[in-house]
Amino acid sequence: MEQIVIDKLHDILSSDRIFTDKADLYAYGFDASIHHATPDIVVKPKSSEEVEEIVKIANEYGVPVVARGAGTALCGQAVPIHGGILLDMTGMNKIKEIRVEDLYCVVEPGVIYAKLNEALAKYGFFFPPTPGSGDVCTIGGMIAVNASGMRAIKYGATRDYVLGLEIVFPYGRVRFGSKTLKNSAGYQVERLIVGSEGTLGIITEATLRISPLPEKRAVALASFNDVVKAGEGVAAIIASGMIPSALEIMDKVCIEAVKKAMGIDLPDAEALLLIEVDGKAGEVRESIEKVAKILEGKASQIEFTDDEERMAELWRGRKGVLPSLSRYGEDMVSVSLADDMSVPISKVPYAIKEFQEIAKKYGIIVGTYGHAGDGNLHTKVLINPKSPDAWQRAEKAVDKIYKAVNRLGGIASGEHGIGITKAPWINGDIETMERIKAAIDPKNIMNPGKMEQWRKSIIAYLRYR
Amino acid sequence: MEQIVIDKLHDILSSDRIFTDKADLYAYGFDASIHHATPDIVVKPKSSEEVEEIVKIANEYGVPVVARGAGTALCGQAVPIHGGILLDMTGMNKIKEIRVEDLYCVVEPGVIYAKLNEALAKYGFFFPPTPGSGDVCTIGGMIAVNASGMRAIKYGATRDYVLGLEIVFPYGRVRFGSKTLKNSAGYQVERLIVGSEGTLGIITEATLRISPLPEKRAVALASFNDVVKAGEGVAAIIASGMIPSALEIMDKVCIEAVKKAMGIDLPDAEALLLIEVDGKAGEVRESIEKVAKILEGKASQIEFTDDEERMAELWRGRKGVLPSLSRYGEDMVSVSLADDMSVPISKVPYAIKEFQEIAKKYGIIVGTYGHAGDGNLHTKVLINPKSPDAWQRAEKAVDKIYKAVNRLGGIASGEHGIGITKAPWINGDIETMERIKAAIDPKNIMNPGKMEQWRKSIIAYLRYR
Repeated sequence: MEQIVIDKLHDILSSDRIFTDKADLYAYGFDASIHHATPDIVVKPKSSEEVEEIVKIANEYGVPVVARGAGTALCGQAVPIHGGILLDMTGMNKIKEIRVEDLYCVVEPGVIYAKLNEALAKYGFFFPPTPGSGDVCTIGGMIAVNASGMRAIKYGATRDYVLGLEIVFPYGRVRFGSKTLKNSAGYQVERLIVGSEGTLGIITEATLRISPLPEKRAVALASFNDVVKAGEGVAAIIASGMIPSALEIMDKVCIEAVKKAMGIDLPDAEALLLIEVDGKAGEVRESIEKVAKILEGKASQIEFTDDEERMAELWRGRKGVLPSLSRYGEDMVSVSLADDMSVPISKVPYAIKEFQEIAKKYGIIVGTYGHAGDGNLHTKVLINPKSPDAWQRAEKAVDKIYKAVNRLGGIASGEHGIGITKAPWINGDIETMERIKAAIDPKNIMNPGKMEQWRKSIIAYLRYR
Repeated sequence: MEQIVIDKLHDILSSDRIFTDKADLYAYGFDASIHHATPDIVVKPKSSEEVEEIVKIANEYGVPVVARGAGTALCGQAVPIHGGILLDMTGMNKIKEIRVEDLYCVVEPGVIYAKLNEALAKYGFFFPPTPGSGDVCTIGGMIAVNASGMRAIKYGATRDYVLGLEIVFPYGRVRFGSKTLKNSAGYQVERLIVGSEGTLGIITEATLRISPLPEKRAVALASFNDVVKAGEGVAAIIASGMIPSALEIMDKVCIEAVKKAMGIDLPDAEALLLIEVDGKAGEVRESIEKVAKILEGKASQIEFTDDEERMAELWRGRKGVLPSLSRYGEDMVSVSLADDMSVPISKVPYAIKEFQEIAKKYGIIVGTYGHAGDGNLHTKVLINPKSPDAWQRAEKAVDKIYKAVNRLGGIASGEHGIGITKAPWINGDIETMERIKAAIDPKNIMNPGKMEQWRKSIIAYLRYR
């Protein structure tokens, strides 16, 4: 990077918010994915105006710009693979407005999801998308990848909650959307930005719709001796006209891993469904009983509870799948290679079956779990990371997994995004995406080499693994 | 239009689906707005492939292309102001798939909203956005303007339900989105298309999320002797953590018009709130009683009911506002000049107050009603259409109304779109919209002269009124 760019950044930001130390730069080169690349410089802006000035300089000199929140991206979205300026957005962490009577809040992008919900809970409200990394991830990152989580079946994803955005594009700072619940007054550019992973612009402010917290929740745990039967249970619940607030699935590998690593009391089964309903205090008990009734004859065992302690234990088990899988066996680690495919809901059991067969064929272990109620599945591949042969088999299996997902009418990502890892499996028309990208960012400075590297994606994938 | 274009259209479509008769062309020049312009030719495609071929020819010869559904657009979206080819999309009216266990349906753009909901009702499901023109309007039109209606406060707008689209752009037919509830696998171009009013491409297929029908509904009618008190009532309901399925307001002018024209039993009041809750059979009665309790002390009179007949009468009254206003006085018609502003919910009473003051100042009558619960208001200006002076005063008043809306943090359209009528008041960054438009439609053939005519909008507005 030219010295003049560094000098100009020093004109904008005080030195304590500019990092050029090699150790710092190296550390900032990671996110939660398997990728790494070192930025040329890290800056920590405090305001929209600063972001605007930084991007202006970057555009003038053709320097890559990558925005980063908490770095919890699972597919390399925050890894600056072409170097350049990394913007640490965590300094912009103000909740600017909470207006419960208007059903919105206004936040800076560095606000942590859990902090926002803490603030909203005081009014009896919440921001519903529930990413697994919610305790640490930022709202800006959630918007960038259209994050969601286990409550999307009832509450939708981040894209359904973005009412307005302030965005810094290479040519300037703009606003789209409004503080109104409805808007038919211009192109919905704010919704195009959701899920664009920083490849078009940098979010500097967001106006989000908020929802009232439910009064109460209840949970059912159902065991199945066949994963297809579990899938039939899911279909029956949804076709009954009931929309649970969560409907999670775990396969045998995941159940065993959690029992072994965490000692949580779970039944032995081929598959488990964990179903949560929420609503008014008087109604959740009735709803969860209805769920249990629907599953009768399909499940081998059903437990339902509105006991807070047991519910907390069951959720601990579900949330423990990911760390537990890492302790599944000696010399084994869990790798996120094919980790958040989305299929039509009724295809979930067939997807899991296919994954199991693929795993068997390639001699690897695949654990599958996730949001059965909205068709969003997570798989973790368990391999010995030191074995090149295991890596090779895993890569072949992953390719087969994505092909199976495609055959079932699904897509490569339901909530994590494309980043580097999934670039070969991006969904949608490439020419249109290229046209939009070139129109907004003709010099390709905004998070280059990520989802927009459509045609070169496989090379990018191999190089930055 | 060149003869070669007409000849080429005849190569694609049989003659019975091509209209060039002057009377036909004139009739097709109207929608539900105050605008009119005659197309050069009307075609009625039956398939995506035909639309693709038609647009290809139009792009080759630089001929404008305007898609039209039922022609219920209120702001001139379907009026072909630069002539060219008008596509009557009502021939593409197949419901291709209904998958309740997967929570989606797939439809062609010419499917009528009410027909879709009839088909879904057989499974106990519905497509929630509820436009006032729902009995006749098409799904394609709803997507084009991001239509919603009175249930948006609880269920959101069309933009929240579009999972996937097939779109014909000038350069070809493409697909975005998926049949999965979640999608983070590429640019959300399908959501950019929602509300773009045919200025980017023509929708040829839509995959829509669907929802289970509620078991039961109940309604409360509350009278207020001050519109600000009605607004306080709205704020209190929402801040209580309750989201009604509808929360409508009518001002004095509207109440009087409905009573006079329809003979419906409504209280004398400065403002009425009509509140609907939906949900499980056992819970709606409790919810509507809670609403009544919240409004105690604020309202001068409250009625609540779950009697089907009385509820139907009250909704007839609400839906009768628009026709009733047209019969308010001799020599008076109701004109849609400033008709669907959206403000933050708590600003609704202040907006109504300002509209009343503006009406008084300019010596016209303005009736205000609409979706108080989501901040989306409708005003109808009542004037003698033969009086040029009345038109002039109305235009000045409308300008003041939009300025007031802006001051209150609102926008010009919540659900009808921009079209021609509201072009001067478009929301969002103009440069970005121009960049996207030019990237997708460089020859400006897609519904030219509409919302994209940002800088020339006032001229367009005056010319095509």
